[in-house]
Amino acid sequence: MSTFLDRRLFLDHSVRLSLATATLGAYPLAEAQAQAQVAGQPFSNYGVPSVHEKRVIRLIGSNRMVSGNGVSWTPLEALEGIVTPTGLHFERHHNGVPEVDPAKFELVIHGKVSKPLRFDLASLLRYPLQSRMLFLECGGNSNAGWHEEPMQKPVGSFHGLVSCSEWTGVPLKYLLDEVGIDSKATWAIAEGLDAAATEVSIPVAKLRDDALLALFQNGERLRPENGYPLRLVLPGWEGVRQIKWLHRLELTDQPVMSRNESAEYTQLLPSGKAEQFDFVMGPKSLITSPSHGQTLGAPGVYEVRGLAWSGHGSVATVEVSADAGRSWSTAHMDGPVMPKCFARFRAAWKWDGKPAVLQSRVKDDQGHIQPTSASLVAQRGRNGYFHYNAIVSWAIDSEGAVRHVYA
Amino acid sequence: MSTFLDRRLFLDHSVRLSLATATLGAYPLAEAQAQAQVAGQPFSNYGVPSVHEKRVIRLIGSNRMVSGNGVSWTPLEALEGIVTPTGLHFERHHNGVPEVDPAKFELVIHGKVSKPLRFDLASLLRYPLQSRMLFLECGGNSNAGWHEEPMQKPVGSFHGLVSCSEWTGVPLKYLLDEVGIDSKATWAIAEGLDAAATEVSIPVAKLRDDALLALFQNGERLRPENGYPLRLVLPGWEGVRQIKWLHRLELTDQPVMSRNESAEYTQLLPSGKAEQFDFVMGPKSLITSPSHGQTLGAPGVYEVRGLAWSGHGSVATVEVSADAGRSWSTAHMDGPVMPKCFARFRAAWKWDGKPAVLQSRVKDDQGHIQPTSASLVAQRGRNGYFHYNAIVSWAIDSEGAVRHVYA
Repeated sequence: MSTFLDRRLFLDHSVRLSLATATLGAYPLAEAQAQAQVAGQPFSNYGVPSVHEKRVIRLIGSNRMVSGNGVSWTPLEALEGIVTPTGLHFERHHNGVPEVDPAKFELVIHGKVSKPLRFDLASLLRYPLQSRMLFLECGGNSNAGWHEEPMQKPVGSFHGLVSCSEWTGVPLKYLLDEVGIDSKATWAIAEGLDAAATEVSIPVAKLRDDALLALFQNGERLRPENGYPLRLVLPGWEGVRQIKWLHRLELTDQPVMSRNESAEYTQLLPSGKAEQFDFVMGPKSLITSPSHGQTLGAPGVYEVRGLAWSGHGSVATVEVSADAGRSWSTAHMDGPVMPKCFARFRAAWKWDGKPAVLQSRVKDDQGHIQPTSASLVAQRGRNGYFHYNAIVSWAIDSEGAVRHVYA
Repeated sequence: MSTFLDRRLFLDHSVRLSLATATLGAYPLAEAQAQAQVAGQPFSNYGVPSVHEKRVIRLIGSNRMVSGNGVSWTPLEALEGIVTPTGLHFERHHNGVPEVDPAKFELVIHGKVSKPLRFDLASLLRYPLQSRMLFLECGGNSNAGWHEEPMQKPVGSFHGLVSCSEWTGVPLKYLLDEVGIDSKATWAIAEGLDAAATEVSIPVAKLRDDALLALFQNGERLRPENGYPLRLVLPGWEGVRQIKWLHRLELTDQPVMSRNESAEYTQLLPSGKAEQFDFVMGPKSLITSPSHGQTLGAPGVYEVRGLAWSGHGSVATVEVSADAGRSWSTAHMDGPVMPKCFARFRAAWKWDGKPAVLQSRVKDDQGHIQPTSASLVAQRGRNGYFHYNAIVSWAIDSEGAVRHVYA
């Protein structure tokens, strides 16, 4: 029978993996001795991945006519832990990555304020900074989940418009207090310095709560494709509102009703009406190993590994199932579990060689539970495009092949 | 008077930074409109830093005759948060970075064991994994601290042989149980596949406790210069023992007494005797901003920022002083604070424009306190080379220039 095991069973002789090859006689030193004859490569000013890992990249899906319009996906199936390597953080651009000269850059805060102000980078760096590990997910991530037929692609090319980084920046509340917000200003329009002049509306309450003006990502200054030199980071909210190359915040008494909050990033409901302003990314989890396109070896013990997150707060529990959700076991999480951040979960699973359907399900500390695909589709129909967060199912056949199914 | 302030005072009108430039009249759109005419750069498979950040690199100090012998430093003064960008993780190599073919790679565990075993990478990836954020520091970091005269270099070029990453790997205890360690085997010799065949001795107790066979760093497979494809990670211990390109572990009943634990990485004491096997990196902190080589602007409020860590456990408190240690204030730490990991501390400081000496001091949760430079030198003399962890002092003159002093 296919069962989840206590993780300590990896230490139990009866289920020991014993994947190693026994060495016979003395340790063969020939290869090591050969290696020791060759002096290695010298130091480098800035390191890059091994040439043997060159297939671990962001795959790109862009508009043939407008090369800067589209996405690139984080290859989640090849990664581990919770930090996304900055070079593999997903991208979603509307008209490419602008070249911004940091010496000339300024952020302007204006509109319904008592004193409109301009901040250059040196000024921003003088304010108190805060560092937080946060996931960042595109509202359109996983949108193939709305299709009638389950998409047959690796987990990164399906769900990889989500990444997790340590962001360091200025809590926006400090600057809002300096400009003096008018009591009627309930919204702010944030605008990027890209060629699409991407602009969105954000309630002032969120900006005062936990918004960061991010200057650093994973320790170093932002990468160009993540908004160099300044990005608005809104913990737990959909990516489109976390404006890259942020150069303007206008305080207003109503939303701007831009393309990206009317024609796009709205939810078309079964009634034919569209729901606007779905800010928070719901609870979501997925198994990254084993996952679609991989093949298990012989029956035996495998570690099921995956990621879970919720824009509402912290991951409370992750459960895993090998029988398409009929029974569930609690997965282990590598700590500490942080709010609005990836959590890495793990579970020891003994595969008996028979067909199985693996699933994971997250509950967050605000009481939200990841829905099944059937219940999400029943609620939202099949015209959805954004905010797909249903349970992901990987079917394993008797040969060990893994493919995506709805279950 | 120069004073530390409650961080909330950044929100107080009386001490408000007010670093911005007031905008006069309407928001000038000309520059943004010009930018919006130019389509941006397309997507990339693997991102790199902005061209404007090309001075943020690892500076290299290597042997002119042997280019792979030396170090490269993490530029701590240019970084924020606790994650070190993987491309900027410090390096210490004895004979360069070997090219290792992952398809042929094997780890051998042999010696005083009941069943010597070989593990290829596919086998290792089947075992349970664990992810941890950990600092990693060279035993020789900050060794200019032993000099009679304070070294006048930026903080990274002085203290930058320390970095912090999320490491993911196999807890070594699983493999040790499979090989069956002889009761007389109290040590293991770990050997790297570099041209120096770097080898060191490690007590078995540490290997059983929390040693990881790391396969991933900050989410992706190890970089070549950090041990691709396999590195031994020993949380909190000196870097030289965390063998890169680890291919051999031999269980023994005594240390190997290699060059790196006899001629090097030992402590020459005032008595003329040398202390061997100083494994744990002691409690240490330093202010990264303001720091040597930087210049403050006008008198006013500054955020003092820095890093603290301890190989014994978690950072308990960090205190800061602006009067060379006569009075101390508790700094704020961005949480969560993790064991054997960097903690980022911050303190609001009102500079009155007069000369000041900034210091930081860490206490860990095991009761260890960072020593003053005078007390460390009194105890260890000036012949030291390794494990320098004294309080670092930055003197600020009336012009705002910052330089390294002993105080």
